[in-house]
Amino acid sequence: MNQTIETILNHRSIRKFKDEALTKEQIHTIVKAAQQASTSSNVMAYTIIGITDNALKEELYKVSGHSHVKNNAHLYMFCGDLHRIYQLANADEKVTIADNLESTEQFIVATIDATLAAQNAALAAESMGLGICYIGSLRNDINRVNELLELPEHVIPLFGLVVGYPDHQPDIKPRLPLEAIYHENKYSPFHEQQKHIEAYDNEMKQYYETRSSNTKIDTWSDQMLRKFSEPTRMDVTPFVKQKGFNKK
Amino acid sequence: MNQTIETILNHRSIRKFKDEALTKEQIHTIVKAAQQASTSSNVMAYTIIGITDNALKEELYKVSGHSHVKNNAHLYMFCGDLHRIYQLANADEKVTIADNLESTEQFIVATIDATLAAQNAALAAESMGLGICYIGSLRNDINRVNELLELPEHVIPLFGLVVGYPDHQPDIKPRLPLEAIYHENKYSPFHEQQKHIEAYDNEMKQYYETRSSNTKIDTWSDQMLRKFSEPTRMDVTPFVKQKGFNKK
Repeated sequence: MNQTIETILNHRSIRKFKDEALTKEQIHTIVKAAQQASTSSNVMAYTIIGITDNALKEELYKVSGHSHVKNNAHLYMFCGDLHRIYQLANADEKVTIADNLESTEQFIVATIDATLAAQNAALAAESMGLGICYIGSLRNDINRVNELLELPEHVIPLFGLVVGYPDHQPDIKPRLPLEAIYHENKYSPFHEQQKHIEAYDNEMKQYYETRSSNTKIDTWSDQMLRKFSEPTRMDVTPFVKQKGFNKK
Repeated sequence: MNQTIETILNHRSIRKFKDEALTKEQIHTIVKAAQQASTSSNVMAYTIIGITDNALKEELYKVSGHSHVKNNAHLYMFCGDLHRIYQLANADEKVTIADNLESTEQFIVATIDATLAAQNAALAAESMGLGICYIGSLRNDINRVNELLELPEHVIPLFGLVVGYPDHQPDIKPRLPLEAIYHENKYSPFHEQQKHIEAYDNEMKQYYETRSSNTKIDTWSDQMLRKFSEPTRMDVTPFVKQKGFNKK
């Protein structure tokens, strides 16, 4: 097994960091790694915002509710960005692009581009001995994050990525069996996936009962049912449209 | 620089592959790497479909128009998948989840989850000496791909990933300068990005004129204006909703 695959398979989300800063070079190496990811037709439909202002970090922490959003060596915010393209077109009288730019297709492109870049950043950081955690909880109040980062039209915050030197070593969380996630030539009906989900529920029950911290009695299926029973972040829908994404 | 960062920075999309198969172990190692990526609240809102049937590859090639969709060692299709969760809830009379499941938020979650997994797969493959290319052009006819893969409600095809032993070595394509993509604490207004975009246009003009194959006269800005002037894939919008994503 090579070092890259080892790094990939050794991933666990890190939520406690040592009080040790990153160098500017480390911060930029991670961004350069992000930029080298594939991007749809070279659009590069994303922007990364590094948060160095502690007052701003505090405000972002209030949206997320997770202390690792303020206690980390660096916080990167990943945004879907079609503003650049829109402005280029605005400067050219012959070009009208709004219908195309504001389609669901381009919303997908921006989300994928930002995420490909982010996973490169995450792995670059992990390969340097740093720990990472994605912060989807910044979408708990996406309007507030939008305001804090002063995002113009056609730019939306998607998620954060916190980075730093790990101060704990959580167990690696098991995933659904390969057979549930990986199908051949066509989608395997749910009834064929069920036995793998049951096996995973048993594995997760054991994992939660015996892991090194925060033990509990739970299964994946129960977690999912609880999670999806409560409508959450329903304001993301109008927000995204209001910013000029996913409208047409 | 460690091996992972070297692999990341050495990325170029590969569109010509040697006629050399992957072992089942290689195919599965790539999937296991994909599965170890972060996933929002452990939902794992994606499915990967490996295409081994040549007749099916031929049909997917017809949608894409790119010959590397049929000529490769393996084609993985990445799908956003909330069907699993929907079926779990369906079996439980006490739970109603449709509003939540069909929101833009969960559409974002599924797209991000699938993409994080895909970039792990891409880097795992590249670290093994394989080449990769993402295939967004399968969204040229997303309804047809949906039909070919027999995807149920709450599963949508997002993109393909072709893998194989490289049979060419294209130049690495330059990216926008770091300063255009990476901002600090708040979004840098477009007028501050402009000089970096101009520098990139000059760099890309040179790159296209002098690269080892397929030379042309072009800039990034011109490419983007041409690309976005023509509405494309507008049928993705109704398709996604019809499949039960991004509706509420």
